Amino acid sequence: MIPAILERYRGAIEGRLSRALDGDGPLRSILRYHVGLEDEDGTPTHVTGKLLRPSLVLFVAEQLGAGLDAALPSAVGLELIHGFSLIHDDIQDRDRTRRGRPAVWTIVGVEQAINAGDLMHALAIATALESSSAAAGRLVEATREMIEGQCRDLEFEHRGITADEYLSMIDRKTGGLLRCAFDLGGLAAGVNGRVRSSLTALGQAVGRAFQIQDDLLGIWGRDDVLGKATGSDIRRRKKTLPVVLLFERVGADDRAKLEEIYGARDGAEVAEESVAWVIGRMDELGVRGACEAMVQRYVDDATGRLRQIPFSDDARSQMEELIAFLARREK
Amino acid sequence: MIPAILERYRGAIEGRLSRALDGDGPLRSILRYHVGLEDEDGTPTHVTGKLLRPSLVLFVAEQLGAGLDAALPSAVGLELIHGFSLIHDDIQDRDRTRRGRPAVWTIVGVEQAINAGDLMHALAIATALESSSAAAGRLVEATREMIEGQCRDLEFEHRGITADEYLSMIDRKTGGLLRCAFDLGGLAAGVNGRVRSSLTALGQAVGRAFQIQDDLLGIWGRDDVLGKATGSDIRRRKKTLPVVLLFERVGADDRAKLEEIYGARDGAEVAEESVAWVIGRMDELGVRGACEAMVQRYVDDATGRLRQIPFSDDARSQMEELIAFLARREK
Repeated sequence: MIPAILERYRGAIEGRLSRALDGDGPLRSILRYHVGLEDEDGTPTHVTGKLLRPSLVLFVAEQLGAGLDAALPSAVGLELIHGFSLIHDDIQDRDRTRRGRPAVWTIVGVEQAINAGDLMHALAIATALESSSAAAGRLVEATREMIEGQCRDLEFEHRGITADEYLSMIDRKTGGLLRCAFDLGGLAAGVNGRVRSSLTALGQAVGRAFQIQDDLLGIWGRDDVLGKATGSDIRRRKKTLPVVLLFERVGADDRAKLEEIYGARDGAEVAEESVAWVIGRMDELGVRGACEAMVQRYVDDATGRLRQIPFSDDARSQMEELIAFLARREK
Repeated sequence: MIPAILERYRGAIEGRLSRALDGDGPLRSILRYHVGLEDEDGTPTHVTGKLLRPSLVLFVAEQLGAGLDAALPSAVGLELIHGFSLIHDDIQDRDRTRRGRPAVWTIVGVEQAINAGDLMHALAIATALESSSAAAGRLVEATREMIEGQCRDLEFEHRGITADEYLSMIDRKTGGLLRCAFDLGGLAAGVNGRVRSSLTALGQAVGRAFQIQDDLLGIWGRDDVLGKATGSDIRRRKKTLPVVLLFERVGADDRAKLEEIYGARDGAEVAEESVAWVIGRMDELGVRGACEAMVQRYVDDATGRLRQIPFSDDARSQMEELIAFLARREK
């Protein structure tokens, strides 16, 4: 069951997204493909993504008394920033697949994919400016945080990291835009002070729960649901939370083997028997359970923060439904 | 002699630029290196670039009656957009050198250089927003034009193009930000209507003269001045205006040889004897003189547009000095 919050605004978001990406030229067309408004051959289709961030902006704005029209451009600007970051991330990570379809750079090449991301970034700000200068400013701030998080994530490929460093990175890379979603909703409604900081803290908790669940799916996700193979984050040496925890928990011998697997710089994928070994060690050392417990902790934290926001009972239970969905999702 | 317009605002621009790029972290540091505020080892130094675009914003704003403080953030935002585009362009073109120093991607790698450009893009908008929402909006529009121009420029590598297509591309890639410079100055001063369109037309003419002179330098520039070898644009198969004109002027035999040289997709540089042959054909067919005549035509056009703007006689002659400098510069 898709939560009501993710259903209610789809039409409005998709319509405004389509307007933002309208226009001639190969870059516009590849951007429409990227967000799912077009097939690879240009046939119109529907957005397949969850549209989580813009839906959050609109829900928070609406529940706190703002008009949807005022918040919609900033919501769509946020989704466009998210989309731009995915185009550039896929280049950086050499990910060939995005939401079960070929990644932009595999179609137009790395050079034009850099341009496509840059254009989407510019269109995002142009769109958000239609809400307000303050909304555009808040979005740019979140963009900066996200990029600095992505920078750290790439650095982490080359050294050992602690769980605290990992959380600090995802607070920027993932949390930056999720906090921004709640903030933009509050901004549209003109809330300040304590409510505003509760919204930010809620976004932070949701961001952590969301990202750690994502990390779980990158290792134990079912490939038929996710469109990528189980263990895929291990195969590509991504240092997500389960790997960080595994490094913390293994003994000296296993650590040497792990360092050999994660230290390889030949660009080749990790061999299948090593992938199986890593997953085996994780299972034996309770890594999966530890990650699941952390997801639950941040869900609880989010639920607590939610009580500090003047939502109606109905709105609060819709938000709880959404948080539970994000923490249990299978893709 | 450096024109007065390029001297007067350097201190103010460099100060604000330094503030925009202040902060910890490897990305901030590489951005300060990129604009010349730091050496590769982090030692503070001075910006070496001309700072043409922000100087134009401030000069136009001041001459039309705006305060410098109001225009400065938008001027620096424009320079940051220019800087971001150079980081991504150098990745796309695999240019290893920028202003005589190693390009950003050769130092931090392609992945982090994408992040560095993205961060500079975000910081540019954050800075411009301090002038006004309208200034940020105008800057985002110019950024979009520039990216669409860069997209076309990359496309042109793979097919024959006409001089008209070439001019239309540089009107976006180079003209986008130069028109914006004049526009932002006018915007800060609150001018509208005929003066505003004269400013835009002036920017367009200056952009064409500037870019074609750049194309001339890419083939006939002295390498000790420019920090790159004479013929360098030929060596790297850049389809600049002299090449476009040569294709239009050669006979069938030479065309076949040209297509062979420009059609090679092996990634290797053009052999020195072929570079010499191309330059020889250009000289015989009057390509250099034709380009120089075009630079002069756009200088004349700019001078005519200048008369439609309510500058003082002194301001007009300073602008004429700048235009002449740009059209005759050796780097």
